[in-house]
Amino acid sequence: MPTAKMTALAEIPEIQSGDCLGDIIATALCANNFTLTPSTILVIAQKIISKAEGRSVKLTDIKASHQAEELAEKTAKDPRKVEMILRESDAIVRVREADANGRGSVIITRTHAGFVCANAGIDESNLEEGHLLLLPVDADRSAQQLAEDLETKLGVKPGVVITDTFGRPWRNGLVNVAIGTAGVPPIVDQCGETDAWGRTLSVTQPAFADELAAASGLLMGKADRTPIIIFEGLDWQPRQAGIHELVRNQKEDLFA
Amino acid sequence: MPTAKMTALAEIPEIQSGDCLGDIIATALCANNFTLTPSTILVIAQKIISKAEGRSVKLTDIKASHQAEELAEKTAKDPRKVEMILRESDAIVRVREADANGRGSVIITRTHAGFVCANAGIDESNLEEGHLLLLPVDADRSAQQLAEDLETKLGVKPGVVITDTFGRPWRNGLVNVAIGTAGVPPIVDQCGETDAWGRTLSVTQPAFADELAAASGLLMGKADRTPIIIFEGLDWQPRQAGIHELVRNQKEDLFA
Repeated sequence: MPTAKMTALAEIPEIQSGDCLGDIIATALCANNFTLTPSTILVIAQKIISKAEGRSVKLTDIKASHQAEELAEKTAKDPRKVEMILRESDAIVRVREADANGRGSVIITRTHAGFVCANAGIDESNLEEGHLLLLPVDADRSAQQLAEDLETKLGVKPGVVITDTFGRPWRNGLVNVAIGTAGVPPIVDQCGETDAWGRTLSVTQPAFADELAAASGLLMGKADRTPIIIFEGLDWQPRQAGIHELVRNQKEDLFA
Repeated sequence: MPTAKMTALAEIPEIQSGDCLGDIIATALCANNFTLTPSTILVIAQKIISKAEGRSVKLTDIKASHQAEELAEKTAKDPRKVEMILRESDAIVRVREADANGRGSVIITRTHAGFVCANAGIDESNLEEGHLLLLPVDADRSAQQLAEDLETKLGVKPGVVITDTFGRPWRNGLVNVAIGTAGVPPIVDQCGETDAWGRTLSVTQPAFADELAAASGLLMGKADRTPIIIFEGLDWQPRQAGIHELVRNQKEDLFA
């Protein structure tokens, strides 16, 4: 029977700006007697990528623009955080203003990479007080770099998915989604395959990288320090493609 | 290290209306030497639930209303299918009309259960020609029934998630989501837990049932007959709750 195994990689230390994640992960893999194969996939929380890449910003270093001040007042947020949200975004998609108690506000934007999410993916939890953590500038490149570093050190290039936690319209609760990949196809195109009755399947395009990201959430607790989930045993074919495959063309989107 | 295993259950026959899924799954579990534990979770494709529950409708038995005829013309769809979409829905959320070649149309509705999806979740693939397959009337009840039947037969009540494949705004490709649960909490509330720095996590609510559903897609190929994925080794606490936990209150939804 088709089987797959997921493991939360232990012994990952607190990541600092400038750390080489390839070194750290290779060491942890060895310490835990893991053997990479070409079908191994590592799903990695954005947070440690951003930390290693120095994407932390000190609030006191940020000067809010007039536009940020205005939006901050409506949403009862720190104007400096709103400034960074605007800088990281191509467009504001939706805003809900704060209630009378200054709560419940939401700013949803489209980031430069095309992701639609709250606060341009900027994070404050699990961070030193007074700091913001931005998404990686190019998470595909981050994933590719990591895959290459692991190949150099261990002789095998695994698939890599970088993930962040987004909310969804219509559904409560959060799931992880893919924001960068190396080797792992964002979408697996099953068009042309036949169903169990021999008819051609018309539109069946599993978002493979998002399935992996969501699955990683089963072991990647927010409060734990398990930012790396290893998938073994999956049947997949490497294909280098950009994460833009998962970003819906705005002209085709009914909810833009 | 925290580890979990996913297995696609083999030896599931073609399901017919009136079949007892509890019997069929219990037999397949035994044939494959699976031992259920209270932490085992079965994720099951909606299709076999709907088939067993006789939710198949013959197109020639459907009479399209005037509203269905109109919408069918705009979207170049079969008026009888549109009629069933309307009957299965509380509201039309978005419509994209067909292009000059009669292609590319989309009808997104809110189903009676509150799910926002294309075509009210009505399916035509992997079905006898000229038939439509509707979502289960109450997938929580279907999941509960199945969990109870397995407990009766095998002495252990596993968690059950029923899943369907939905598209998403903003992101291409499809992922499975949960449409019914038994025992498995749709959302795990981590509010009140502390992060690695001892600060209280404000809003961290993993959509556990959706994570399981999306993960099941890694082994649940459309063209294969593997409608049941078994998860073992996950750390979770049973809680009986309705799938409505995952359905966002329309008043709070910025995309309604």
